Amino acid sequence: MTDPVDLTARLVRCPSVTPAEGGAITLLEDLLTANGFVCNRVERGGISNLYARWGEAGNGRIFGFNGHTDVVPVGNEADWNDPPFSATQRDGRMYGRGTTDMKSGVAAFAAAAIDFVAGSPPDGSIVLAITGDEEGDAEHGTVALLDWMAERGERMDVCLVGEPTCPTAMGEMIKIGRRGSLNCRITATGVQGHSAYPHRANNPLTALVKLLHRLEATPLDNGTSHFDPSTLAITSIDTGNTATNVIPASASAMLNIRFNDRHNGAGLVNWLAEQAAAVEVDTGVRFSLDSRISGESFLTPPGALSTLVADAVEAETGRRPELSTSGGTSDARFIKDHCPVVECGLVGQSMHAVDENVEIAQIHQLKAIYTRILRAYFA
Amino acid sequence: MTDPVDLTARLVRCPSVTPAEGGAITLLEDLLTANGFVCNRVERGGISNLYARWGEAGNGRIFGFNGHTDVVPVGNEADWNDPPFSATQRDGRMYGRGTTDMKSGVAAFAAAAIDFVAGSPPDGSIVLAITGDEEGDAEHGTVALLDWMAERGERMDVCLVGEPTCPTAMGEMIKIGRRGSLNCRITATGVQGHSAYPHRANNPLTALVKLLHRLEATPLDNGTSHFDPSTLAITSIDTGNTATNVIPASASAMLNIRFNDRHNGAGLVNWLAEQAAAVEVDTGVRFSLDSRISGESFLTPPGALSTLVADAVEAETGRRPELSTSGGTSDARFIKDHCPVVECGLVGQSMHAVDENVEIAQIHQLKAIYTRILRAYFA
Repeated sequence: MTDPVDLTARLVRCPSVTPAEGGAITLLEDLLTANGFVCNRVERGGISNLYARWGEAGNGRIFGFNGHTDVVPVGNEADWNDPPFSATQRDGRMYGRGTTDMKSGVAAFAAAAIDFVAGSPPDGSIVLAITGDEEGDAEHGTVALLDWMAERGERMDVCLVGEPTCPTAMGEMIKIGRRGSLNCRITATGVQGHSAYPHRANNPLTALVKLLHRLEATPLDNGTSHFDPSTLAITSIDTGNTATNVIPASASAMLNIRFNDRHNGAGLVNWLAEQAAAVEVDTGVRFSLDSRISGESFLTPPGALSTLVADAVEAETGRRPELSTSGGTSDARFIKDHCPVVECGLVGQSMHAVDENVEIAQIHQLKAIYTRILRAYFA
Repeated sequence: MTDPVDLTARLVRCPSVTPAEGGAITLLEDLLTANGFVCNRVERGGISNLYARWGEAGNGRIFGFNGHTDVVPVGNEADWNDPPFSATQRDGRMYGRGTTDMKSGVAAFAAAAIDFVAGSPPDGSIVLAITGDEEGDAEHGTVALLDWMAERGERMDVCLVGEPTCPTAMGEMIKIGRRGSLNCRITATGVQGHSAYPHRANNPLTALVKLLHRLEATPLDNGTSHFDPSTLAITSIDTGNTATNVIPASASAMLNIRFNDRHNGAGLVNWLAEQAAAVEVDTGVRFSLDSRISGESFLTPPGALSTLVADAVEAETGRRPELSTSGGTSDARFIKDHCPVVECGLVGQSMHAVDENVEIAQIHQLKAIYTRILRAYFA
């Protein structure tokens, strides 16, 4: 049997801070090759990705796992209790960068897949699409793997992303979709002047406050069947004017919109432009908007895949997981254009934090859940 | 006869950037002493001020002039066409720092007073209260002179401040009051958080936008008999948050309120606190306000003094000057607690600018106006 805890520890010891491979992809490539998987390194933009497949093409259904071996920087190493790439085990926990996000997830699905094909070879295929570029711009990661697969006619019928999905306790949540995310910088340009004569100036801040108040006044929606209401957050307003007797010429604001399946990025960009245009007419202040859509919202509607995963989680943990669409973005946003995708992993509490750590029992539980999923899928 | 243009030029050549005396106060002291004025240097806080008086105390009415010899810095001297303390004359203009603001005004009233007492000694007194600290904090300037006078039982029955008062053409405006000015820094403190989960944070920017929108929604007033409407200008909003996925913990805004005689500083400070408290209740975000009243509003109601000054301006320029209360603050805000005060001077267009300059003819005209005023006052 493949020990997912030992595999997690070996992966954590690879210092694979994006974009460095750190030995993690090679370690998995060697292990999977030794266990009958056909491995392909997919190198793009200085990033190493791994496409591993067990089973013949054209023979039955294909179950895919997706995950990443790259990790975020450790920050100030002196703040850590243990060296961040030491995988120190203490009091039932393993400490280190990537223990939660998500080397334990990759180890659990790799160990589950290896043992499953050895014990009861399925009438089908198992694909492991593992990337080294998720924490960065994700430009050369899962997208590169999906492109590579498409070029070769390789595919997955369904995909499970092994990201941490539980807020506080194992088994409480899986994700069947994600909100989209849009950032927008709004720059307001008016006419500078003396604050004693505001009628001779045109204050960009007055217009910016008017626009932001307008954007916040009406909720974007009240939520949908599977999504919370979309949110709009002003994350910064900046002017940099230190002269109290001067009305500034310009000012800017940053917005972040997290949107559900009632919206799409382009529609929201239009909505922002319309609101700005209305305030331009009112005030004469000119707005320029610089919008970036970092991901569209998506949903894998509850159905066969989510039921299969939820059943496995419940059987293993005794908890019926919530089918959630909360949280930020993940590589599932790329995969959803290819096949149904669900995310299921362990507790994510210490992700990206100093002294990141995972409860060791959760790694065993996660391997067991993934094994149940494979059994049920190929039953 | 005393040439006000030559005197202006000699004053401009004194580099009297606040707090430096630069020789300007000494020059006036010597000139006035030589012409029968009793001079007292009033030194305070490293600033030289001059109190000059012609006439015996207790003998008739006392007409006062007030002005300043200090000037604002030249900025980048390389940007000037002529050395800023050269008082270069060209094409009917004199160039240099202080030519407009307000060495020409001081020269004009000093020359007018000297020639007037020499030609037709009045049955009364003329006081020249000249400060070297108007452009700075004005802490040791006209206030020091007024304190010094009060201690010695010296006073003025009326006072004319010789600041530039005309926006574009000689004679178009005198000032019979000034609005007050209040600066306020508002700091909003909420709860930091991830922009994907705004309900777990409490965005100080949302509350700040709400408060600023509220402050700008209702005009402070619609103006009064002698004042334009009070104004409120947001001069800066700053956050300094560069992370688009983070809701910041705090943000701040700067306001400048210019208020008329319907308000006073303390009342506006209360009003701001009430508005902030209401938004605190709505949002849970806490506001702290740091207010500074740099001057209360005041008015010398139209009457004997303003009519006398306006008549002199009209007789000399052919224009009936507007009795205005517009603009920033001036030392008249200190004098108004002692006697009726009116401001009357030349065109202020190039004040504080590079290549500050004055039309030479305006200096002669201003001396003539001041002479008419003295004649009418002591008639």
